[in-house]
Amino acid sequence: MSALFFVLTSLPAFAAQTEAPLPETFANHKVVLQISDSDPFKQTLVLNVAGNLQRYYGASDVDIEIVAFGPGVRLMLKGNANSQRMQSMMTAGIRFSACANTLANFAKKLGNTPELVEGVDKVPAGAGRILQLNAAGWQILKP
Amino acid sequence: MSALFFVLTSLPAFAAQTEAPLPETFANHKVVLQISDSDPFKQTLVLNVAGNLQRYYGASDVDIEIVAFGPGVRLMLKGNANSQRMQSMMTAGIRFSACANTLANFAKKLGNTPELVEGVDKVPAGAGRILQLNAAGWQILKP
Amino acid sequence: MSALFFVLTSLPAFAAQTEAPLPETFANHKVVLQISDSDPFKQTLVLNVAGNLQRYYGASDVDIEIVAFGPGVRLMLKGNANSQRMQSMMTAGIRFSACANTLANFAKKLGNTPELVEGVDKVPAGAGRILQLNAAGWQILKP
Repeated sequence: MSALFFVLTSLPAFAAQTEAPLPETFANHKVVLQISDSDPFKQTLVLNVAGNLQRYYGASDVDIEIVAFGPGVRLMLKGNANSQRMQSMMTAGIRFSACANTLANFAKKLGNTPELVEGVDKVPAGAGRILQLNAAGWQILKP
Repeated sequence: MSALFFVLTSLPAFAAQTEAPLPETFANHKVVLQISDSDPFKQTLVLNVAGNLQRYYGASDVDIEIVAFGPGVRLMLKGNANSQRMQSMMTAGIRFSACANTLANFAKKLGNTPELVEGVDKVPAGAGRILQLNAAGWQILKP
Repeated sequence: MSALFFVLTSLPAFAAQTEAPLPETFANHKVVLQISDSDPFKQTLVLNVAGNLQRYYGASDVDIEIVAFGPGVRLMLKGNANSQRMQSMMTAGIRFSACANTLANFAKKLGNTPELVEGVDKVPAGAGRILQLNAAGWQILKP
């Protein structure tokens, strides 16, 4: 599967096929929150902003996806300090996506692919995911 | 007033009523500058960028609102190192908005709500303010 | 030339004339990557993201311009650790732009204008360049 992924990404003509599916959404507000910082405080801040936006718009009126790439992917790793809070945010409808490029880099350094918090999706490229959602009408916010 | 605010934000159906009013604007360029970092250098940088954009477009051709949330709200607190510069930027037409969610958190930690630089507006949610302006055609820039 | 630039930027009515030209582009995806952080890790991350996006979309299907302002301009200075990598990225079609406002500030502090990596363009204002590209349909991403 990951071998297939590398084959596909090295063939530009097939690149579009690696895009993750767009979420179905009926909310008036669609927001993609970016986390690409190593600062643990930023990782908490992005979760706070997601919660605040659900209260601000009402949970049924906003769709939120939190996308991590680069050092921000640490937020998505199993056992991190925020994982329980993330689980309850998922129950409240917030989605989490982690960058497969970054995970492949982590795996090269660590010798094995780190596990993600249960319920986090893998997307082929975190930056690409943010741009994909933005092109589909989602607003980008980087707390 | 702040009790009313918490009542409204806990009732999703009323959330839209807590939105701050949109500024009247006739400029060709509308830019919302975000500050959500704790780094004091970033707080100076966001002011530099606002000044540069006024020179770049001409002050009458650009509307600028600086919105702070999270640790970036420190820029808006009375007595901070940049407050005099902010006053003269307000005279030049630049608006400043501070996140009421963040101020409520500061108040919980400090025991009292910190005062803002004179002329800074309070908005119910800094992130929500940025998204509101963006939806109304303002470009987001986070220096 | 640089004296002329300062004359023009101090005359708001002429500001539009100082805008750098828009690149001709036929790609389906147009992305402006912002670097305005002093953290050297961020400077590497922005280059990684540019490379990942070329692989993700296919190099012929995405146009990328990396715009630096504030402390991010260090990435563009001659002799920096990433300059060879930047040269090969330029060969792959990625453009680099450095903020002339920031360079003028560096010059004031250092006593002379620092040289740029060969092939880096100077733009009158980095923030203005990002907004100009965005207004022309480019998506902004700040890694």
